[in-house]
Amino acid sequence: MEKVEDQNPQQEEDQVVNPWEVSAKDGGKIDYDKLIDKFGCQRLDQSFVDRVQRLTSRPPHVFLRRGVFFAHRDFNDILDAYERGQKFYLYTGRGPSSEALHLGHLIPFMFTKYLQDAFKVPLVIQLTDDEKCMWKNLSVEESQRLARENAKDIIACGFDISKTFIFSDFDYVGGAFYKNMVKVAKCVTYNKVVGIFGFTGEDHIGKVSFPPVQAVPSFPSSFPHLFSGKDDLRCLIPCAIDQDPYFRMTRDVAPRIGYHKPALIESLFFPALQGETGKMSASDPNSAIYVTDSAKDIKYKVNKHAFTGGQETIEKHRQYGANLEVDIPIKYLNFFLEDDAELEHIKKEYGAGRMLTGEVKKRLIEVLTEIVERHRRARAAVTDEVRFLKYSIDISCIV
Amino acid sequence: MEKVEDQNPQQEEDQVVNPWEVSAKDGGKIDYDKLIDKFGCQRLDQSFVDRVQRLTSRPPHVFLRRGVFFAHRDFNDILDAYERGQKFYLYTGRGPSSEALHLGHLIPFMFTKYLQDAFKVPLVIQLTDDEKCMWKNLSVEESQRLARENAKDIIACGFDISKTFIFSDFDYVGGAFYKNMVKVAKCVTYNKVVGIFGFTGEDHIGKVSFPPVQAVPSFPSSFPHLFSGKDDLRCLIPCAIDQDPYFRMTRDVAPRIGYHKPALIESLFFPALQGETGKMSASDPNSAIYVTDSAKDIKYKVNKHAFTGGQETIEKHRQYGANLEVDIPIKYLNFFLEDDAELEHIKKEYGAGRMLTGEVKKRLIEVLTEIVERHRRARAAVTDEVRFLKYSIDISCIV
Repeated sequence: MEKVEDQNPQQEEDQVVNPWEVSAKDGGKIDYDKLIDKFGCQRLDQSFVDRVQRLTSRPPHVFLRRGVFFAHRDFNDILDAYERGQKFYLYTGRGPSSEALHLGHLIPFMFTKYLQDAFKVPLVIQLTDDEKCMWKNLSVEESQRLARENAKDIIACGFDISKTFIFSDFDYVGGAFYKNMVKVAKCVTYNKVVGIFGFTGEDHIGKVSFPPVQAVPSFPSSFPHLFSGKDDLRCLIPCAIDQDPYFRMTRDVAPRIGYHKPALIESLFFPALQGETGKMSASDPNSAIYVTDSAKDIKYKVNKHAFTGGQETIEKHRQYGANLEVDIPIKYLNFFLEDDAELEHIKKEYGAGRMLTGEVKKRLIEVLTEIVERHRRARAAVTDEVRFLKYSIDISCIV
Repeated sequence: MEKVEDQNPQQEEDQVVNPWEVSAKDGGKIDYDKLIDKFGCQRLDQSFVDRVQRLTSRPPHVFLRRGVFFAHRDFNDILDAYERGQKFYLYTGRGPSSEALHLGHLIPFMFTKYLQDAFKVPLVIQLTDDEKCMWKNLSVEESQRLARENAKDIIACGFDISKTFIFSDFDYVGGAFYKNMVKVAKCVTYNKVVGIFGFTGEDHIGKVSFPPVQAVPSFPSSFPHLFSGKDDLRCLIPCAIDQDPYFRMTRDVAPRIGYHKPALIESLFFPALQGETGKMSASDPNSAIYVTDSAKDIKYKVNKHAFTGGQETIEKHRQYGANLEVDIPIKYLNFFLEDDAELEHIKKEYGAGRMLTGEVKKRLIEVLTEIVERHRRARAAVTDEVRFLKYSIDISCIV
């Protein structure tokens, strides 16, 4: 049985995880087991990783085999359907609240690209410029500008543009999409959204109106130009687990309006350079590596700001080894160093004190610099293409 | 100073007037003076009637000279601007909750046609099929069907289609219109809509989301294909006074998002055949004259159901005369008998007991039958035109 009971984060005494706030209890680490239990999703165990490998005939993505995507809802139904020869589509998105993305922002897109390639399925990407206009008090124009800039970074992740539709809400809300918004809104009481999202009476009604906007890309009929006549197509949503409340609501409503519940595959949060106590903060540029950072910036940030588990002195380090549980360079390498053998080697040597923090940081700087450089080249190449496509708001796609 | 304090109809102890409920205290008559005071609008006095006559060089509409449109907000600003040679536009609408319209439904449209003709201004007509889908629990398809049917009745009122844009929300919400919805929603708290509309926590969020949809046709930038570059154009809204809460909210928000406050000109409620205790009820077909009623239906309804102020016996009637204050045939003639002299004559003779109820009813039946027949002919003529125009959802207009 799916657990659909809602939790009001305002009333929670320990960790808070919702689309606008992620904070652990007493400044500690997020307890993901507790989160799975509270949200009522399932842990993504090794059997899923093996099954994905078997079905796609390719090695599972590093985010999958290392547990970055660690939770799901009905992912098994998606795989069952795929095994029967039925397609599905992917849906992910971004709230364009800042000009430059950091590496944490790229994680769902990197993983979604892998899923698209592995399963050869269409993808819709929602840019919630309306949400950011309302939550961050940006002007409509500024929100749209950020959406267009972010679209370039997203396209730079290498999606199959023949199978990908990127849209901004300000551009796309209307027609079939709006009709589905109304259908969803009819099924959700104000008390319900207060329970799920913790809104208060002093919040503006734009916030109360928004959850259906993020819900309806889960339904193929919201995209008649893509999925006409395919109302039965299933949807899989790769996202960070803080987005779960939106889709808990969506899944609750879906059968009442005649649609499949969307399936989810959910990731951990990417830790801040200063340590794993939540998500990175846009207000502190030193808390994250941005895709606009130079090689020099990356070197400086990692060397200066990355929290490590190494010991205070070389002597102590040789004696006790590094505490890998809190070490940010190791955590970052766990996300981005693809070579499993090398990662195991580093963890073993560093944990035993034979490898020094400086050496691990040096390797991390190489890995991050390569990713960021590659992204920058891809983004530069995208610019023209996107300009040609009027910011890629209308790439059609065939299932 | 404009009174903007909100009133929660849930907490009112006497009369309730909001877009979904009109009921007088203890089943009595609506106290319009009290309503004007509570809502904070102004009474439309004779000086306005005279001024409109002077500015338009034509006799004021019967609804204007007999006080059917009795209240306003900033109508003087509209007339000032018009006198300076500036145009404005009209905005009215309908929630398509039923197949056939009754005469009460036609009143704002009849008056709006007069205003359009007299001032030669453009007009937008909103069909809130989304609202009715949510409030009346109609399917999207049924709401849209009713919107198309109602559009024919509206067009039958004789608008200048070269200056009129009729749209359904399900068709038109999106783009500039949606951007304005978000701008409005950002400025209105949940507590505020509870104060204005009396929503409860168990109401669905579609209701909470809707007020901005009815607000934004007040702003010319919601119609870029009509009013591009004319963001300064003023808007005048003819409507029944139960719609005032929407526009109180709109006027509160308008200056905060850089727009003019819309002006309003507001009507009394058209009384039910059974007596003046509120609006007519769609659930009781005998409470109203419908535009689909046959001559026979009208005769039957007026003779059988119209509440009169005539006395019980002819003898008493000759002696005391009719009580015109409660007499529905007189009230209906006040709306629809254009000849002032004839109306005065009937009131005088009937009030003195020289004219009998049956005679007044006979004249009313003639007047109503003629209006309904004329409407039916006009609607039949519209059908083809509307069909040709794809239900008239895209009539462009030049200011």
